[in-house]
Amino acid sequence: MIVVMRPGATREEVLSVCRRLEELGFRTHPIYGQEKTVVGAIGDKRALSSEAIVNLPGVEKVVPILKPYKLVSRELKDTSTIVRVGEIPVGGRGIVVMAGPCAVESEEQLLSVARFVKAAGAHILRGGAFKPRTSPYAFQGLEEEGLKMLARARQETGLPFVTEVVDTRDVALVAEYADALQIGARNMQNFRLLQEAGATGKPILLKRGFAATVEEWLMAAEYILDAGNPNVILCERGIRTFEPATRFTLDLSAVAVVKENSHLPVIVDPSHGTGSWKYVLPLARAAVAVGADGLLIEVHPDPARALCDGPQSLHPETFDRLMGELTPLAVAVGRDWVTSGSMAG
Amino acid sequence: MIVVMRPGATREEVLSVCRRLEELGFRTHPIYGQEKTVVGAIGDKRALSSEAIVNLPGVEKVVPILKPYKLVSRELKDTSTIVRVGEIPVGGRGIVVMAGPCAVESEEQLLSVARFVKAAGAHILRGGAFKPRTSPYAFQGLEEEGLKMLARARQETGLPFVTEVVDTRDVALVAEYADALQIGARNMQNFRLLQEAGATGKPILLKRGFAATVEEWLMAAEYILDAGNPNVILCERGIRTFEPATRFTLDLSAVAVVKENSHLPVIVDPSHGTGSWKYVLPLARAAVAVGADGLLIEVHPDPARALCDGPQSLHPETFDRLMGELTPLAVAVGRDWVTSGSMAG
Amino acid sequence: MIVVMRPGATREEVLSVCRRLEELGFRTHPIYGQEKTVVGAIGDKRALSSEAIVNLPGVEKVVPILKPYKLVSRELKDTSTIVRVGEIPVGGRGIVVMAGPCAVESEEQLLSVARFVKAAGAHILRGGAFKPRTSPYAFQGLEEEGLKMLARARQETGLPFVTEVVDTRDVALVAEYADALQIGARNMQNFRLLQEAGATGKPILLKRGFAATVEEWLMAAEYILDAGNPNVILCERGIRTFEPATRFTLDLSAVAVVKENSHLPVIVDPSHGTGSWKYVLPLARAAVAVGADGLLIEVHPDPARALCDGPQSLHPETFDRLMGELTPLAVAVGRDWVTSGSMAG
Amino acid sequence: MIVVMRPGATREEVLSVCRRLEELGFRTHPIYGQEKTVVGAIGDKRALSSEAIVNLPGVEKVVPILKPYKLVSRELKDTSTIVRVGEIPVGGRGIVVMAGPCAVESEEQLLSVARFVKAAGAHILRGGAFKPRTSPYAFQGLEEEGLKMLARARQETGLPFVTEVVDTRDVALVAEYADALQIGARNMQNFRLLQEAGATGKPILLKRGFAATVEEWLMAAEYILDAGNPNVILCERGIRTFEPATRFTLDLSAVAVVKENSHLPVIVDPSHGTGSWKYVLPLARAAVAVGADGLLIEVHPDPARALCDGPQSLHPETFDRLMGELTPLAVAVGRDWVTSGSMAG
Repeated sequence: MIVVMRPGATREEVLSVCRRLEELGFRTHPIYGQEKTVVGAIGDKRALSSEAIVNLPGVEKVVPILKPYKLVSRELKDTSTIVRVGEIPVGGRGIVVMAGPCAVESEEQLLSVARFVKAAGAHILRGGAFKPRTSPYAFQGLEEEGLKMLARARQETGLPFVTEVVDTRDVALVAEYADALQIGARNMQNFRLLQEAGATGKPILLKRGFAATVEEWLMAAEYILDAGNPNVILCERGIRTFEPATRFTLDLSAVAVVKENSHLPVIVDPSHGTGSWKYVLPLARAAVAVGADGLLIEVHPDPARALCDGPQSLHPETFDRLMGELTPLAVAVGRDWVTSGSMAG
Repeated sequence: MIVVMRPGATREEVLSVCRRLEELGFRTHPIYGQEKTVVGAIGDKRALSSEAIVNLPGVEKVVPILKPYKLVSRELKDTSTIVRVGEIPVGGRGIVVMAGPCAVESEEQLLSVARFVKAAGAHILRGGAFKPRTSPYAFQGLEEEGLKMLARARQETGLPFVTEVVDTRDVALVAEYADALQIGARNMQNFRLLQEAGATGKPILLKRGFAATVEEWLMAAEYILDAGNPNVILCERGIRTFEPATRFTLDLSAVAVVKENSHLPVIVDPSHGTGSWKYVLPLARAAVAVGADGLLIEVHPDPARALCDGPQSLHPETFDRLMGELTPLAVAVGRDWVTSGSMAG
Repeated sequence: MIVVMRPGATREEVLSVCRRLEELGFRTHPIYGQEKTVVGAIGDKRALSSEAIVNLPGVEKVVPILKPYKLVSRELKDTSTIVRVGEIPVGGRGIVVMAGPCAVESEEQLLSVARFVKAAGAHILRGGAFKPRTSPYAFQGLEEEGLKMLARARQETGLPFVTEVVDTRDVALVAEYADALQIGARNMQNFRLLQEAGATGKPILLKRGFAATVEEWLMAAEYILDAGNPNVILCERGIRTFEPATRFTLDLSAVAVVKENSHLPVIVDPSHGTGSWKYVLPLARAAVAVGADGLLIEVHPDPARALCDGPQSLHPETFDRLMGELTPLAVAVGRDWVTSGSMAG
Repeated sequence: MIVVMRPGATREEVLSVCRRLEELGFRTHPIYGQEKTVVGAIGDKRALSSEAIVNLPGVEKVVPILKPYKLVSRELKDTSTIVRVGEIPVGGRGIVVMAGPCAVESEEQLLSVARFVKAAGAHILRGGAFKPRTSPYAFQGLEEEGLKMLARARQETGLPFVTEVVDTRDVALVAEYADALQIGARNMQNFRLLQEAGATGKPILLKRGFAATVEEWLMAAEYILDAGNPNVILCERGIRTFEPATRFTLDLSAVAVVKENSHLPVIVDPSHGTGSWKYVLPLARAAVAVGADGLLIEVHPDPARALCDGPQSLHPETFDRLMGELTPLAVAVGRDWVTSGSMAG
C-alpha cells in the first residue's frame, strides 16, 4: 500500500507511520516529494484494511496496491473455471441458457414452461420457490411445494434446475432438491447466507447486488470460495442508476471487467436487467457478444397473468425467436452453441 | 391506478383491459383522448401489482395512484410515533444520540467508550457483536461474548443498547440481550430477517439500504409493522452515488420526505454516511437542522487502532465537542435537548 | 395529463383544478375514488408543463401521459431516418464506423491514422480541433489549424469527417470545413449551441450527456429538429454511475430504448464509454449486437504518447482486429457491413 | 504520482517507465514488492495527465498524488475568500440570502418579488433573463428586456442582482447590467463560457453540474481563476441519483468537502436541489447548519402561475417564515446574520 502524507506533515509524523507499518509486518520506503511525502509499504497483508493507518497523524490517504480478493482472482488462477450444473458445463466454449418462470406458481404452469424451454434449446431450468418481494402483500412463493415441482420438472425434461435461497435456515432444504443455489441481488452481501450456501458444495449462482461494485461482487464470491466451494457462477442483472427508462441499467462492461480480473464464469440476466420483455432480445444478443458465458431468461406461458415479474417475462414464442437469433451470434463470436441435443447425448 | 394505452390501441383492446380490471375487482373509467386513451381503475388493491395489467395487448404503461405502503403511512396515522428504547423516547421533542464503537472489541474498549459517551450526554449505547464485513478476511465480531459485554456496559452506565443482527438464526439470542435490534443497510431487503426481528416485538432500528429508494425503505418497515411490531426507527446512512469524495452521499432530503409521508421516527448516521470523522460534525448539525429525531455516531477511544471503521470514528474529545455544538442547535430548531441527566431522573 | 389529488382534497379543490385546466384548453374528466380523486385532462398541450397545475391547492402530483418530444418520435414518423455524412448513409442496414484520434495533434499524426482507418474499413474520420478539457492546464486543441488538417486528410483518403464544436461563435467556421458537427456530452444541454449548430443544416452527431436521461437526450435532439434540421445522429457514450471499474457505464439498453421511441439513428462510443482500450472490443461487439447503427472509435498511432485520451485509444493493429471481428457479427444480426470499398464504388 | 506495475511486469518494463518519467521531468523511485512493483515519481507536473504513462507496457494504473487544481486550493491560500456582490460580502461570517423568481416574467412580477424579499431580509436579488430549458417549447426568457427590469428592481430596492448567462455571445451584455453572473449546472463544463465570463472580472456564481464530482467542480472554478478572476462563489444545487422522491439529491456533504479543500465561498440552492417547495425550508436550515455561506432561494408571488419552476418556488409568506427560522439557527452555529439593515448602513 501507499500512504500519502498531508502537505506539511512533519518528519516525525512520517517516521511514526513507518514505525506503525513495520509493527504490522511491512517494509517501508518513504519518498520525500516537493509538496507531499508518500510511504511505500511492502508486504502481503490483505486482511489489514487501510483503516489501521489512515487515522494516524499527518496521513492524507492510503492507496491500496493489491486487490482485496485473492481466490477468485485471475492473478492466482489464470485458466477459466468451468462450473457444472447437473451435466451442463458453464464457463466453457458453449453459451448456456437458463430459462423458466420468475416464480413457480403451479405444477401445470411449471411443466408447460419446462417442456417449452427444453424444446427451444435451453439447458437449465430456473424458477423461484422462495421469493424475496419488496411488498409484504405480494406473492411470496410456494416454498417446499415449489421445490418438489421443480424436481418433477427435472425428472420429466432432464433439465437440471437452479432456484433461489433467501434464509440460512432453508439452505439445507433447498440444497436437497436443487442442482444449483441462487443468491439473489438483495442478498449478495448477506454474508452468513453466502457462507452457509457455500458450505453445501453445490454450484452457487451469485447475482450482483444492484448497487455493488464489481470489486464487492468478487469479494462476495471470495466468501464462497473461502468456505471451500469453488463452484461460483456470477450473474450481472443490472445496477441502479438515474435512468428511469429501464428498471435497472444492465452493466455489460462489468462482464468484460470480470473476465479480465477473475477466472469465474459470468452470465447475464437481461430480464431483471431491463424489466421489460421488449428489451430482452437485444440485450441478450449484446450479452453474448460482450463475452458472457450464458443467459438467465424469464419465460412464462401467460405473462399477463404471471404472479411475479410478468412485464419482463417472455412469451414462449418470443423465447423461441431469441434462441434462433442467438445461434448464429454465438458462432460469430467464436463460441459453441451448446444445443440441448448435445447435452442429452 | 391509471392504465395508459398505446397510441393506436383498438377499442377492443381498451374494452379488454376494462374487463380484466373488473374481473380483479376495480371499477373502470375509460377516457378517450386525441392521441391516447387512458383507463382509470378505482378500488383499493394494494396487493395487486401493476404487472397484472401492463402486459395486456395495447397497454403502454400503468401508473399507480395509491402508495404501496399503508401501515407506516401518515395517511393512516397522522400523529408521530414515539418508540421507546429502554426508557428513552425516540421521535418526540428530544434529539436522541446513540453512540459507541463500530464493533465491540474488548470489555475494556467498550466500557471506556460507554462511560465516555454517557458523560458527554449520549442516551443510547451502540456497538456491533455480529459484523457484516465486505471481506471474509476482516474482523467479524465477538458474537455472544460481545453481547454480554454490551449488557455489562448497560448495567454500569444505565444506557440501553442497540446492536445489529445479521442472521435469522441469531435473532432470539440478540433479542435476549439488546434493548433494540439493528437491521443493517445490506439487510434492508432481507425480508425473512425483517419478519423474524419484527416478531420479537423489540424496537427495530432499520437502516436504509444504500441503493434503496425512500419508498422501498418504507416498504421494508411495512414488513415489520405487518409482523405486528409498530416500534420501528428509520435510519438514513447515505446512498451510493458517483461522488467519490465521501464514502456515501448522505441524503438529508430523505429525512424530510420520510417526515412528510410516514409517522415513524427517523435518525441519521453521519459516520457511515460520510465515511470520514472530519465530516461527522457538520453533517450531524445538518441532520438535526433538517428535522431528524436523533443521531447514530461512531466513537472509539483510539480510532487509529480500531478493528472496524476507524476512519469515520470520533475521538472521545471530538464527540464531546459535537455534543456541545448540538445543544444550542436543537433549541434553535425548536427541539428539546434530552440530556442524560433528565433520563436518569 | 392526469392530476392526482391528495387524500382529503375537497370537492371545491377538485373543481378549481378542473376550471384551471379548462382555462388552459383541456377537457376534464374527474374520477372519484375511495381514497383519492384523479382528474383526466384531454388536449395536446406539450408546451404546458405540469408546473402550471401541481401547485394548485389539493393537488398531490401530475402525471404526464404524452411524451414531451414530438418531432423525433416514432409516433410521428415510423420509418427510420437515414442521415448522410458525406456519401455515407447512417441509420440504414450498414454498420458505420467513425474512427480517428481524440485530438488532432499534427498533420503527420492525423494522416497516418486516417490512412490506417481507411485501409481497415472505417467510413468516417473523427478528430477534435476544439477540445473541451476538464483541466485548464490540458491541451485545448489546434482550432482552425486542426480543421485544415482534417480537410487535407479527407482530400487524401476520401473519408468525410466529423468534429466537435464547443462555442456558438465557432459554429460557422467549423461548418465550413466539416461534414458533420459533433455536440459533446458536456454540451448536450447547451441549448444555444444546439440551435446554432442545428441552423447550419449539417448533420449533427449528438452525444448523450453523461447524466442525461434518454428522454432529455431526445429533447435535446428535438431542439435541433425544431430548428429545421432533421439530420441528427444520436451517440451513446456512457453514463455516470457508482461503478469505478470503468470510466463511465456504457448504457446499451439506451440503444434499444431509443430505437423503440425514435426514428433517429443511434451509434455507440465504447472508447469514452469504458475509458480503457481493453474494453473497447467487447463493448463494440455488444453495441452492434444490441442494434446500434454504428460506432465511434478512438485510434491513435502511439497511444502512450497521445495528448488526449490515450488510455482508451486503440493501437492501429487492435483497430484492425476489431474491424475483423465486427464483420461476421454484423451479418449474424442481419445488418450489412458497409465496406469502405462499396462506399467508394 | 505513483505508477503501479502489473504483476509479472519485467524489470525492463519498469526501467522503461522510469526513463519516460525522467524524460518528462520527474525523479523516480521504484519499489519492488512481492507481487507488484510501484514507481514513485516526484515533481510538480499538474498539466501532465496520467495518460502519458498508463499506456506504457507493464503499467497497471497510475495514482495521482497531487490534487489537479491549484489556484482554488486551500493548500495554496489558507484564508477563506470573501467575494463582494455589490456591497454584500459572501464568504464572511454572515449568511447571505439570494432570492427571487426563477425567470423574470414581467416588471410587475419582478418588482413585487424584489420588494418582498428585500423586506424579508434577503441581500441579493436573483432572476433569469436567459433561461436554459429542457424543452424547446418552454418559455426561454425575456433576454435584454429582462436585464433592464432587473436593473430597475435594483434601483428601487438597493439589492444587487445575479443572473444567468448561457452563451459566450451574451457575456458582455449581461455583464453590463448584472452585479454577478451565474453559470448554470448544465454549463458547468462549458469551458469557453467559463473563460469568457471569468474575463469580465465580475463575481461568478458557479453552480455544480448535477453529475459533476466536487473535484470537477473545483476544476471548473480553476478555469475562472486561471482567467484572472478570483471572485468565484460555488453553489451546490443537487446531484442526480436513483432516488425519485426529490428532483435531485442535495449533496450537503459537498459543502463540507469544499470547505476543507478550497478557500472559495459556497452557497446552497435547496429550491433546485429538492424540486419541491415543501422541502426547501428543512434543507435550507440544514445548509446553514452544515456550514454554507449562503442560500439561493426561488420566490414567486403566485407559484401556481409561474412560467418556470413553480413547484419549487416559495410563496412570499413561506419565504418570510424561512427567514425567521434561519436567524436563530445562524447564531447557533456561530455565524452572524447579515441583515439587510446592516448592509444599508
